[in-house]
Parts: sequence; C-alpha cells; structure tokens
Amino acid sequence: MKSKTRHLTLNIEERMEFVNITPQVAELVHESGVQEGLCLVNAMHITASVFINDDEPGLHADYKEWLEGLAPHDPSRYRHNRTGEDNGDAHHKRQIMGREVVVAVTRGKLDFGPWEQIFYGEFDGRRSKRVLIKVIGE
Amino acid sequence: MKSKTRHLTLNIEERMEFVNITPQVAELVHESGVQEGLCLVNAMHITASVFINDDEPGLHADYKEWLEGLAPHDPSRYRHNRTGEDNGDAHHKRQIMGREVVVAVTRGKLDFGPWEQIFYGEFDGRRSKRVLIKVIGE
Amino acid sequence: MKSKTRHLTLNIEERMEFVNITPQVAELVHESGVQEGLCLVNAMHITASVFINDDEPGLHADYKEWLEGLAPHDPSRYRHNRTGEDNGDAHHKRQIMGREVVVAVTRGKLDFGPWEQIFYGEFDGRRSKRVLIKVIGE
Repeated sequence: MKSKTRHLTLNIEERMEFVNITPQVAELVHESGVQEGLCLVNAMHITASVFINDDEPGLHADYKEWLEGLAPHDPSRYRHNRTGEDNGDAHHKRQIMGREVVVAVTRGKLDFGPWEQIFYGEFDGRRSKRVLIKVIGE
Repeated sequence: MKSKTRHLTLNIEERMEFVNITPQVAELVHESGVQEGLCLVNAMHITASVFINDDEPGLHADYKEWLEGLAPHDPSRYRHNRTGEDNGDAHHKRQIMGREVVVAVTRGKLDFGPWEQIFYGEFDGRRSKRVLIKVIGE
Repeated sequence: MKSKTRHLTLNIEERMEFVNITPQVAELVHESGVQEGLCLVNAMHITASVFINDDEPGLHADYKEWLEGLAPHDPSRYRHNRTGEDNGDAHHKRQIMGREVVVAVTRGKLDFGPWEQIFYGEFDGRRSKRVLIKVIGE
C-alpha cells in the first residue's frame, strides 16, 4: 500500500469564503503514484469545511446568504462565545457544509463527475488554517 | 490491496426522490472479494446525495417536506439560477443530506447496524445521473 | 494491509447528548499498529451521529438548541411517527450532524488539528446503540 500526506496552510482575508483547492489535491494524487485508492481531504479546524460542489460565484453567494440565515453571525446568540470567542456561528455553518470529503482515485486520477470541484470553506477567517490531504492505495 | 469500482447510472422521473441502492453496493462488495476494507459510495453530480438512513416511506416524505422548507425550489430565490439553471435549491438540499458515505467492509460484508440502508438522493431529476461505488481492502 | 475493527456500545440516558469518544478511537489506532492509513468512525444507528468539533459545553448546548429549532421533537410533526415511533426528529437531526467521520492516521496517530475531537451524537437515547471504528493501512 502506498500513501502520501500533505498539510496545506490557508489564510483567508474574509470571515466567510470558499476556495477551490482541487488543483492541490490533484497534484498530491499525481505525486503519490496511487492508481486505485481513496483520497481524504479535511479541514483541520472546527470552524471550517471541505466540501464538493460547483465553482460558480452565484451559487457561492447563495450559500453564504443561506448559511447566514441558518446560523447568523450575531455573537450574542451563542453560549460558546462566552468563552471569549465570537465564532459560535462558524461551528454551526461548518456542520451544514461538512468537515471532509473522500474521493475515489481511479486509474491515477480523481474519479469525478463533470462538475465536481473541492472547496475549502472558511467561516472564521483572518487567521492561519490547515487542510489535510491524504491518499492511500496502490 | 484489492479494489473494485463501479459507476451506476440512474434516471429519476421526479425532481426529488430517494432510491435504495444497497443491493448494488452489496453486490460490488461481494464481487470485489474484499474481506476487510472500506467502501465509498458517492453522488458524481452536485445536485444529488448519497446518504444512509431508514427505508421508510413516511420518513422520506418528511425529509422532502423538511428540505423544501430549508431550501425552497422557487427559482427566483437563487443567484445560481441566473446562469440559466433552475436547480439552485438542489445544490443546497444536497449539502444537508451529504455527498457520500464510507462504509466498513468486515468479513466480506457491509458492516451495518440493524436499519442502515444506502440511498441515492435526487434533487434535480429527469436527467441521467451517476453514482460511484469503490471498494478497497484485502 | 492491516486492519482492525471495534464496535462500541453506548447507553445514553438523555434523549439528546454528545459524548467524546476520541480516547476509544485513539486506542484502537494504537492497537492496530497502522502507521499510515485511514480510520472510519460511524454511528450504526440512524438516529445518531458521529462528528468532529470542539469539546466545549457551551457549544454543545448551542447545538442542541439549534437542532431543536431545525427539527423540533414534537412527535405530531412527522409521518414517520405513524409507524409507532416518536423519533422522527432524530432522523433529521442526524442528517445535519452527519453519520460518520474519516480521519487520517499519520505516523501511527490520529492526524488532528488543535481542537478536533470525535463525538458520538445521540438524538434518540435511553436505549443501547453501537458505534463502529475501523482502521486500515500499513
């Protein structure tokens, strides 16, 4: 069994933003030499997501508005913020969008449908965050 | 390490519908010969889900009503639909229900609890869609 | 390829509660001898979740209130409860929080960010439930 692991570091200037990290994932799959296997991509922070969807700016704006409706930023709403944080909402938004994706590697490549792209979803930006990519297989 | 991959094609006549695909997944696990490993099942389209829950029609009707409340179809609500689509809601419903499941394979079988069944969740049907199943292990 | 599997049994006294199961997962990773691989942790019941977030009581109270808002317990709301159950809400809450997590194992340990902890999320407690942990790799 082969494996290869990489930790990306991202610094997002906005509180909430989505960044396409498909090229970095595809590169690690290529470097791993894995032909058949699985690739895990996950946020290493609990106020961020990794998810797969469309790279379309209108959709991303829709997502932001929708998530703000489901879990508004307003710091006074969350008991969590009594710890001195103001990111209670980010812990909720991350649960909607998910922590991780697992992608099949087939014949050496990400086995994707026509529109699948991997995004890092930041919900509490303006600080350094990490994403883990791990490929295992043969 | 062994692996086996299959791409299913589904054509759902309704806009929103859930289809039990457990038999197809179990069949591939059997064909793979994997005794101990992992099985990934994911939607290859970004307006569809794969999820695990109960095969109970009342629950599925509840899910449809609930998802319609959280992300109504009304095409005028979504910036994404300015691209000419009318499926902005489907991209949101899919995030609630998830893209994929990873299931343990133990002693050659899906290692399931008593009620776990794998569903394809369609949120923008009436067109051909694909699901990926990949088993790896030994 | 190595693999190791364990099924935990949990009995939660509350209807809704979150339990940190990171120690049990870390122990199985250690016992497995896997240095590089993946670890799957999933609820085996469809009214429960496994998720990764912060071990902070205020946040957990926020989650409970938020989930109750998104899918209230009130049994009369759900067609599913016509089957004789009263846990329709739990099937919905579990979809928000997710069924499973997949965690990288790197140099023999769970490859975690600074605050990542694994929780079992119970939404229909007062009965015996199981969680599956499976490690594969080399």
